[in-house]
Amino acid sequence: MSKIASNLQIDSARLWDTIHETAKFGATPKGGVRRLTLGPEDKQVRDWFREACETAGLEVHVDALGSMFGLRRGRDMTKPPVGLGSHLDTQPTGGKYDGVLGTLAALEVVRTLNDAGIETETPLCICNWTNEEGSRFAPATMASAAYAGEYTTDNILARKDATGVTVGEALDGIGYRGSEAVGARKFGAFVELHIEQGPLLEAEHKTIGVVDRGQGIIWYDGKITGFESHAGTTPMPLRRDALAALSEIVLAVERIAKAHGPNAVGTVGEAVIAAPSRNVIPGEIAFTTDIRSPNSETLEAIDRELREAMAGIAARRRVEIGFEAIWRKPPTIFNPKLVDAVENSTKALGYSHRRITSGAGHDACNLATVVPAAMIFVPCKDGVSHNELEDATQADCTAGANVLMHTVLALAGVAS
Amino acid sequence: MSKIASNLQIDSARLWDTIHETAKFGATPKGGVRRLTLGPEDKQVRDWFREACETAGLEVHVDALGSMFGLRRGRDMTKPPVGLGSHLDTQPTGGKYDGVLGTLAALEVVRTLNDAGIETETPLCICNWTNEEGSRFAPATMASAAYAGEYTTDNILARKDATGVTVGEALDGIGYRGSEAVGARKFGAFVELHIEQGPLLEAEHKTIGVVDRGQGIIWYDGKITGFESHAGTTPMPLRRDALAALSEIVLAVERIAKAHGPNAVGTVGEAVIAAPSRNVIPGEIAFTTDIRSPNSETLEAIDRELREAMAGIAARRRVEIGFEAIWRKPPTIFNPKLVDAVENSTKALGYSHRRITSGAGHDACNLATVVPAAMIFVPCKDGVSHNELEDATQADCTAGANVLMHTVLALAGVAS
Repeated sequence: MSKIASNLQIDSARLWDTIHETAKFGATPKGGVRRLTLGPEDKQVRDWFREACETAGLEVHVDALGSMFGLRRGRDMTKPPVGLGSHLDTQPTGGKYDGVLGTLAALEVVRTLNDAGIETETPLCICNWTNEEGSRFAPATMASAAYAGEYTTDNILARKDATGVTVGEALDGIGYRGSEAVGARKFGAFVELHIEQGPLLEAEHKTIGVVDRGQGIIWYDGKITGFESHAGTTPMPLRRDALAALSEIVLAVERIAKAHGPNAVGTVGEAVIAAPSRNVIPGEIAFTTDIRSPNSETLEAIDRELREAMAGIAARRRVEIGFEAIWRKPPTIFNPKLVDAVENSTKALGYSHRRITSGAGHDACNLATVVPAAMIFVPCKDGVSHNELEDATQADCTAGANVLMHTVLALAGVAS
Repeated sequence: MSKIASNLQIDSARLWDTIHETAKFGATPKGGVRRLTLGPEDKQVRDWFREACETAGLEVHVDALGSMFGLRRGRDMTKPPVGLGSHLDTQPTGGKYDGVLGTLAALEVVRTLNDAGIETETPLCICNWTNEEGSRFAPATMASAAYAGEYTTDNILARKDATGVTVGEALDGIGYRGSEAVGARKFGAFVELHIEQGPLLEAEHKTIGVVDRGQGIIWYDGKITGFESHAGTTPMPLRRDALAALSEIVLAVERIAKAHGPNAVGTVGEAVIAAPSRNVIPGEIAFTTDIRSPNSETLEAIDRELREAMAGIAARRRVEIGFEAIWRKPPTIFNPKLVDAVENSTKALGYSHRRITSGAGHDACNLATVVPAAMIFVPCKDGVSHNELEDATQADCTAGANVLMHTVLALAGVAS
């Protein structure tokens, strides 16, 4: 890190104002943001972002899935740019920081470099990835996944929301189906700043999370078929109660994930009783399960133990249990050199920090499969995210943006 | 029982034909019946029933809640009639026998007595009680409960269905708001034939259940408030998972009911996660619980143990659990003399039988609080009811109708 660079700090007030300025696009009465991908509020924030990029002297390009790239020229334009950014869409009742911080901090980095008259050796490219959240269209992080070759562009364009509108139609509707082929824009490295969305940094009073891994994830769809019968007339020993079977499954998921702790997690997030009634024994339940671990072997062990537990429950309770893995994402191992670069910048800036695993999926996890990538976390209040109560401090957001800037400068190099 | 009477049998084929004739009103493709109370199909079966009663020489009266009474004169019209019957409404996906058997068997008893030229000492009154099922309007067995003084007529008339239609409006809509005051028609005794809706008679190969008790019931509305958080980023030990808490509650309800067996039952029939998502730890769940026992002390013990279990779960899992009893029905003790009368008729007719507790609520349970009452059960296939698969044999239905007839003759007396 050059002498000039290490004294350089982003403009904290400008970053903070920018975050709160964009929070008006889809603002909710409770102080959160509802900005579903490719909807009218997303168009508003995209138009704002394009104008801000152009004002900062960036060339804006849009790819065929609507991901936006603001290019800042470097001294050596033959080299691929260092990418930085995140996403501007939110959950239906989302907060002001998830995705937004990483995208606007990238903009702030450019603004700061512009103000300081710093030219980088390689170009920089600030990014707004389409549909990170996955609330309107499945899957989540679809544009970066397509960028990384996990899906074809056509596959993603044909995905439909709950009302039957396709991604392609939604892109055309807001004028953001770009001409650039998905994946055509190459990066030399990619760095994403994000709120932690978990409680660890706050609990340990650390400012910066140096993210070295992303959890591997398996998602399951489950279905229990017992027998619906009268709650008053069916003796306890004759019951085939689907909800009692689900209860054992939920506790088994919890027990098995705990046994593989501290980093493994397991959750039953959805459970719907078919035709529920207060005086009918539940006969059929659909449920989902989400298991995660930063370690592939652990993930497979949890999968195996869960299936054993379910076989036992099914036999003992005389119910059928269907349990199908619908998505498997291997653990992400972030590029060690980039992780070191993040840690070095953090140390140089004097922030408290720890290595951390990302429990959530992020665009950077997809990009890590095709380009050296890293992530920087800052604390969020009570670990709460995907919630209008999501909160982060100005000081922590500023620290994260400073680490982002110095990491990017270290990767891109300062033109002498 | 007089010599003439003991040889008398109902017309099995006529009863069977009548049951299947009325099953066309609201017939479902799967062979069940959908005849929600006070809807168009209920009007059809009521019109049919009225005409059948009048053809059989009965005077038909309708009370202010639509309950229908077909009066057959006795020799001594100063004595109150013996009531017999059940209900003609069904569950949304109900069967052909629940309620229907008891009502049409009552009609068959009258037809048989007419054919045999038998006059009873006291009058008889065959009944079709409004809204036994409670599917369209709550509560279940509302008309017989109002008859027994548990609710005022106005209270029931104001109850609304899911679309906002009141009971009063629905009665007017099908022309069945009668002029007779609810509860004004007095009975000397009341006998209801019904399918068991449980598996015991079938399992023990008994034809007749001599019902001596009805379960006491407590219904609860419950709510668990934990904390909604990200399934990927929240470590297992920090979770306040409402679904995991519910799972322990479901298993506690099951364990406690079993411990008070064999007659006690406990069921969580409904459980709804607020804003469910596969990658969000459930933060809030509404649920219901139904506990039953034929013994008041047992019911209170279960209530107490459930509350203790929930307090432990709430403390251990750092969640709030609300658990409110919204309905308490004490156990029904059917009139011993009437129960003996049912048993004596059964023995005289030579049917296998056992004493049995009714697990379900019935109109006769309400009537038992104001008039000597009894019930007769016959087996249903696999104990299944409230289901289009509900089934019963012609032989068992016939046996039940014969027991009903001879019990009623014993209570009403045969005019000599």
